[in-house]
Amino acid sequence: MNHLLGQRAQEYLKQLADCSASEIGVTRFPFTPEHKRANALLTAWMQEAGLSVHMDEAGTLVGRYDAGNNAPTLLMGSHQDSVKQGGAYDGIMGIVLPIVALDYLNRQGRKLPYSVEVLAFADEEGVRFPTALVGPRALAGTIDESVVDRKDKGGTSLRTALSDFGLEPDKISQLKRNPDNILGFIETHIEQGPVLEHEGLPLGVVSAICGIERHHLTFTGQAAHAGTVPMHLRKDALTAAAAITIEAEKLAIKLPDLLATVGQLDVTPNVPNAVPGRVSMVIELRSPVDEVREKAGKMLQAFAKETAQLRELGCEITRTYSQQATECDDSLQLALARAIVSTNNRVHHLPSGATHDASAMADLTRVAMLFVRCKKGISHNPAEYASDQDMGLAIDALIALLSDLQC
Amino acid sequence: MNHLLGQRAQEYLKQLADCSASEIGVTRFPFTPEHKRANALLTAWMQEAGLSVHMDEAGTLVGRYDAGNNAPTLLMGSHQDSVKQGGAYDGIMGIVLPIVALDYLNRQGRKLPYSVEVLAFADEEGVRFPTALVGPRALAGTIDESVVDRKDKGGTSLRTALSDFGLEPDKISQLKRNPDNILGFIETHIEQGPVLEHEGLPLGVVSAICGIERHHLTFTGQAAHAGTVPMHLRKDALTAAAAITIEAEKLAIKLPDLLATVGQLDVTPNVPNAVPGRVSMVIELRSPVDEVREKAGKMLQAFAKETAQLRELGCEITRTYSQQATECDDSLQLALARAIVSTNNRVHHLPSGATHDASAMADLTRVAMLFVRCKKGISHNPAEYASDQDMGLAIDALIALLSDLQC
Repeated sequence: MNHLLGQRAQEYLKQLADCSASEIGVTRFPFTPEHKRANALLTAWMQEAGLSVHMDEAGTLVGRYDAGNNAPTLLMGSHQDSVKQGGAYDGIMGIVLPIVALDYLNRQGRKLPYSVEVLAFADEEGVRFPTALVGPRALAGTIDESVVDRKDKGGTSLRTALSDFGLEPDKISQLKRNPDNILGFIETHIEQGPVLEHEGLPLGVVSAICGIERHHLTFTGQAAHAGTVPMHLRKDALTAAAAITIEAEKLAIKLPDLLATVGQLDVTPNVPNAVPGRVSMVIELRSPVDEVREKAGKMLQAFAKETAQLRELGCEITRTYSQQATECDDSLQLALARAIVSTNNRVHHLPSGATHDASAMADLTRVAMLFVRCKKGISHNPAEYASDQDMGLAIDALIALLSDLQC
Repeated sequence: MNHLLGQRAQEYLKQLADCSASEIGVTRFPFTPEHKRANALLTAWMQEAGLSVHMDEAGTLVGRYDAGNNAPTLLMGSHQDSVKQGGAYDGIMGIVLPIVALDYLNRQGRKLPYSVEVLAFADEEGVRFPTALVGPRALAGTIDESVVDRKDKGGTSLRTALSDFGLEPDKISQLKRNPDNILGFIETHIEQGPVLEHEGLPLGVVSAICGIERHHLTFTGQAAHAGTVPMHLRKDALTAAAAITIEAEKLAIKLPDLLATVGQLDVTPNVPNAVPGRVSMVIELRSPVDEVREKAGKMLQAFAKETAQLRELGCEITRTYSQQATECDDSLQLALARAIVSTNNRVHHLPSGATHDASAMADLTRVAMLFVRCKKGISHNPAEYASDQDMGLAIDALIALLSDLQC
């Protein structure tokens, strides 16, 4: 059974991938002709599945599978937009799979004791405008209304883009939902990492969305001739940077709940015959457990300062960014786990290292995420891929979840 | 006494520094109007000191303090050219101090049992033409004659530059000297490093000019999202690069005759939220002992390959450059040491990490070098400075050396 539904999802995603501003990969920014074409396809498929469709003033396409006025509502969905020359699955697969699952239930004539809304958010990636997550934040009532004045590179404000899309940006603040009658938000997404493939599993349950912090670190030593300054008289900024790069890795290997990455490192003057006088670098920490991340950040700041003192270097280290972790709801995780078991697969819980719409939705309601295996963990890339089979199993799991969910 | 001679040297160097193409620091490239003006000054001072002056076909200004036809000849000197916006001492101080020393002896009416030639080489830095050390190589007979066809950035060949300077480049091969009647080559130079200042000494005897080798190393891993790939599934090229940077430093601290520098390191893609997929770097090794340098090079190559294997990375490492060490002659070192003792200073032997004219002159005759303390070890910089006092002591030492040298 799942294979046919998986094939249908694959076919839908192929049509959506054609709604792209680039020939290489998928480029679908919010409030563009490509977005409009994608929405037209989604609207048609939602209506076919028995959903009533409208677009809210934040540009979120909403398809409602209605169970009557007094029934509570389960929210599902993800984002329609892609990065530049990205893939065909990131985000939009989490809109398509619930539609196919609801279509199946609808064709079976199944009534649910709660309404379901499938949400196709306009903008999660934040590539076009210097803001993102406007759709879920509007629902949660956490939106900073001034963001509509931010402009894209072409000088078009988000306000103008929304108006041109037929929306009334001034009414965004009215979108705030009352959480009392909402059952939760369930987001389906490709994993964007290699864990499920490594485990040999098609599906996984997200335990939490990692918190993130970044530290900008500069060691200042003394640039010098690599031939004339003995080792004990050097003030080498790069050996200090190397020491903390190794330390960050060690710490993250020791603490299972921590990811530590030195992704950016710039050496000055950066020539073969000069002792480096200055190194600027960024240390990024992610963890599903905020205490772990914050403790690691403090430990690495202390290590940087000790290293600088030992090596007689200047050291500036600043935490420039931090974002708390989002816990996934235990009972929704359990419901997803049961649904995966019903597809005859082993349940694997894993944190999400990337941020998702669910992070913003957590301010409104309890959230959970179903991860689908993607090939080689590749994402944000034209080579992004999830198989018909894996998507079919995900649809099966969603059908099982929707069938069994207690409200 | 030395203070007055040191003041004179400082005054000469100030006049020479005015022969510059830049207002900031000294920019005096070979075969330029600045070179011509500097030569005019040097010629006048040489003649004042009783030297007979000519320029050889490689552009070396030669001032000869003659002791008659059958006497052997001691060669002294250094290079007149500077780097772009360099200092007033690097090279040219090693021409001025012997002139002042010989002028003193001449005024005293002192006869020496050997002739002395002060050589002002045109080009040691190799900044204008993609070649250098043409002057000393011509004397040693090690010159590759095709270098005269090499061009500067403006398209002027070295051949044309020599001709425009009134020289006959085709006669360069005739400059080869017969070593039998040459006593040696003694080069005086600022240290260009912090060792003498650190030791509290004005002068030092160079034990050897370091050999140099460079290894270009590339680690290739897998660029990946810093949030979605667990530590144990990463192929991080930067943590491997950090490991070998630390290892190179450790090795150089352990082996007293070794300098190891990672001066250049480039990360790809070099963004905060991506595990680095590729790092290119250069490891430079210098040692006065070739065996030490070569052993260290092999150890670091092996370490790089083991690190890559352990971390499942690709690794390309190539020794792209190597140059052997130049030993300084024991008896000339002893003569310099005695001369320093005569100035009431402690003798300190140290290797030269930088290459000098003496490296090329070693193919002709035994060489030795006298280092003069420079402020904060700064060189190749407008802030380069040697004091009147230190230069005065160096002149005293040269006078003592010239007075006592056995031939």
